[in-house]
Amino acid sequence: MKPIYYNLNDLFKTLTLFDGMGISFHHHLRNGDAITNLITTEFHHRNLKKLRLFPSAIFPSYHGILTLLKADQVDTITTNYLNGPVADYFAKHGKPNSLKMQTHGGRARAFIEGENKVDIAFVTAPTVDREGRASGAQGKSACGSLGYAIEDVHYASTVVLITDNLVDALDHYQIDGTTVDAILVVESLGDARGIVSGTTSITNDPVGVKIARNATNLIQELGLIKPGFSFQSGAGGISLRVTESIKTLLRDKNITASFFSGGITKYHVDMLEEGLVKTLYDVQCFDLDAIKSIDKNPQHKAISANDYANPNNPHRIIKDLDIVILGATEIDLDFNVNVTTDSYNTIIGGSGGHSDTATDAFVSFIVTPLMKARTPIIKERVNTITTLGKHIDCLITERGIAINPRRHDLLEQLKDSHLDIVSIETLMARAHHYTGSPQKTQPKKQPIGVVEDRDGTIIDTLYTKE
Amino acid sequence: MKPIYYNLNDLFKTLTLFDGMGISFHHHLRNGDAITNLITTEFHHRNLKKLRLFPSAIFPSYHGILTLLKADQVDTITTNYLNGPVADYFAKHGKPNSLKMQTHGGRARAFIEGENKVDIAFVTAPTVDREGRASGAQGKSACGSLGYAIEDVHYASTVVLITDNLVDALDHYQIDGTTVDAILVVESLGDARGIVSGTTSITNDPVGVKIARNATNLIQELGLIKPGFSFQSGAGGISLRVTESIKTLLRDKNITASFFSGGITKYHVDMLEEGLVKTLYDVQCFDLDAIKSIDKNPQHKAISANDYANPNNPHRIIKDLDIVILGATEIDLDFNVNVTTDSYNTIIGGSGGHSDTATDAFVSFIVTPLMKARTPIIKERVNTITTLGKHIDCLITERGIAINPRRHDLLEQLKDSHLDIVSIETLMARAHHYTGSPQKTQPKKQPIGVVEDRDGTIIDTLYTKE
Repeated sequence: MKPIYYNLNDLFKTLTLFDGMGISFHHHLRNGDAITNLITTEFHHRNLKKLRLFPSAIFPSYHGILTLLKADQVDTITTNYLNGPVADYFAKHGKPNSLKMQTHGGRARAFIEGENKVDIAFVTAPTVDREGRASGAQGKSACGSLGYAIEDVHYASTVVLITDNLVDALDHYQIDGTTVDAILVVESLGDARGIVSGTTSITNDPVGVKIARNATNLIQELGLIKPGFSFQSGAGGISLRVTESIKTLLRDKNITASFFSGGITKYHVDMLEEGLVKTLYDVQCFDLDAIKSIDKNPQHKAISANDYANPNNPHRIIKDLDIVILGATEIDLDFNVNVTTDSYNTIIGGSGGHSDTATDAFVSFIVTPLMKARTPIIKERVNTITTLGKHIDCLITERGIAINPRRHDLLEQLKDSHLDIVSIETLMARAHHYTGSPQKTQPKKQPIGVVEDRDGTIIDTLYTKE
Repeated sequence: MKPIYYNLNDLFKTLTLFDGMGISFHHHLRNGDAITNLITTEFHHRNLKKLRLFPSAIFPSYHGILTLLKADQVDTITTNYLNGPVADYFAKHGKPNSLKMQTHGGRARAFIEGENKVDIAFVTAPTVDREGRASGAQGKSACGSLGYAIEDVHYASTVVLITDNLVDALDHYQIDGTTVDAILVVESLGDARGIVSGTTSITNDPVGVKIARNATNLIQELGLIKPGFSFQSGAGGISLRVTESIKTLLRDKNITASFFSGGITKYHVDMLEEGLVKTLYDVQCFDLDAIKSIDKNPQHKAISANDYANPNNPHRIIKDLDIVILGATEIDLDFNVNVTTDSYNTIIGGSGGHSDTATDAFVSFIVTPLMKARTPIIKERVNTITTLGKHIDCLITERGIAINPRRHDLLEQLKDSHLDIVSIETLMARAHHYTGSPQKTQPKKQPIGVVEDRDGTIIDTLYTKE
């Protein structure tokens, strides 16, 4: 039996609070999360200073973090993904060394190895029992997998579960309760509708359709679609269109995949239920169909970030990944990819599992239009490196494909291909044909933080915009 | 269902073997273990070179490791405890940088953080089912807890369980099977009688009795025996005598302890069964009574080395430890303790959990005779530092007690004590009164390796004897 509180104030009376403390949050309720705001606002009212914040991601609705930043109560933020008002604040007012962007696997590693030192983990948990066992799969605020919260639960000094659905006993759970110190029961964890990512529908844009077709053809020519292959795609419209094409291929060829990993959508669930893939390894549900599936399909498995992608865990799922489909905001002539900032230093996302999966997958594919809003995506040098070019194998656009020259094996396989395979320099020239030569990029401003690769290496610096 | 082999050769055909590979073993069958010899002899016959060995400890019976060393097939050995012929070999023929001594908690940390990179873990497992679940509590070669093998199972790239008791399905297990790659069934894992440590009986030697009485009195004066206190003692005769005295105290005062941790003996089990302590957290069973208990007493819990002592795990059991009773081969004027080598560089043991528990416990006690074989135990400088003096609080001998001057709080508590509390320099002088001034110690010879503290810091160098 764990101590149970029904009032934030009663809970806070029992917590040891001090300036400089580290607190963590997870982001599975995404833009619908009310708890990160509840807790950070309480820290604001209690006037705690020099806080070290470890949210696994920061979404536009996380105004409590913005309040703490504006009141100068934050020392550092360590996160995997960031956009909205907090990102805008960093672009304008970011202080030196105040921001570290990690990967999903790197965050797990840093918790386990004591690099991310967290005093209290506040864990939004859709269903909790009196022993502190918890599941994301049930409850009115169900979010499915709690994958990114598992290391917080194991490695924070104090662990508080926050729920709007307290039950007597849970049979199936993702958090086993051993390390849980207290439970807070609230009226509502937020608005589950906010969980749905803005990007989880298949593109019908003709450019996107063409890119997805090119990608599917390339994957086929490389012979990667074979019984037992494994696959990961994000929730972007083009990635999902590739996923749908692969579904058709599997049906036609009567092939079964071994697993899909990462963030899971209805498109992945459909393939599980149709028997086209044996197992879904899910760190994060991107839509309500995925949440329903995780509760009913035994082969739809919630896994922790450590199980998913910790580079020091030799049994991590993605080390056996054959194919990953990823996006890019920018890519450069060395194949370095940026999904962290725009060209003017504003943070618009972050690695999430980008670098993790690109590094581990047998072949990593970037799918992107050659231009967005008349701006070429291929640059001489990306503004910020999210994933090192040595881990990126293929760039697929609507106007041609480039293979990283490091992958002699793929180039050899493709030497008689009829696909439009050219150098990345040629692809850049094709873009410049339409857009003209690109503007000079903005000069760098004040440094505010770093991009840390999954193994702890610092691979780039982040700057203010102004 | 995991692949099951009934023949060593059939198993080895499926393994990827290469020069420079890392292999690990655990030592729960101690001097009765036959499997470490079986496997290392096979590596010898296959003439694999530059092996990196990660046995959690090395006992006198481990002749297969000696064979590999003599045949120059070993690059490095990383272990927590070492004595017998392998230790003698190192004293005479040790090569530079070939040996690293870790702590039990440090070994878990180094597996988890990717510092101990192991290609194949060979895990002696007294009972195994067809899904690769395993328990040390049952079977003809039962050894109780498999605590030190758990990180090997989670973090080695390939995991082989070796058993002499294959069953269809296990309900209660210490290894959950997820990361297990293969099972080898053999006739016998060894001689379970070899599990019993040579040191698990209570001393009746008058000097030992006096030291234990002094220790018990000191613990009482410090007010450490109170409801819910926690305690760890090793299996040494004096430690166990202190444990027995504390048993009497608990009975008399009607006090219940919260937990005892570490290596467990019949003396600890008796107190659990008498209701004098609520829980035993067991990383290693030191005798057959402990093995029987772990199978039948639900509050006698097998835990992993990570749960026990990983310094980067904030929920490690020993962070809540009040009292630890430890031994010393040497202790110096700065309270540094040596249990790794004798004064002539021969390795006679190692930290095990010495540094882990001394660092974490609220008060650490060293119990030792002032002299052994007419040699004073207190030196100006220990030959090898196993545990840094800053973590050692009290030294208790038959002729007086010294408190580390860093512990103002304890000294303040003891200022009116009638116990014979003096400076460590005075204790050394008392010894010299009987033994005369000590011989000059031997000069250092060739460096062969290092002592690594639990957090990865190198705290001393190891040398050959000749």
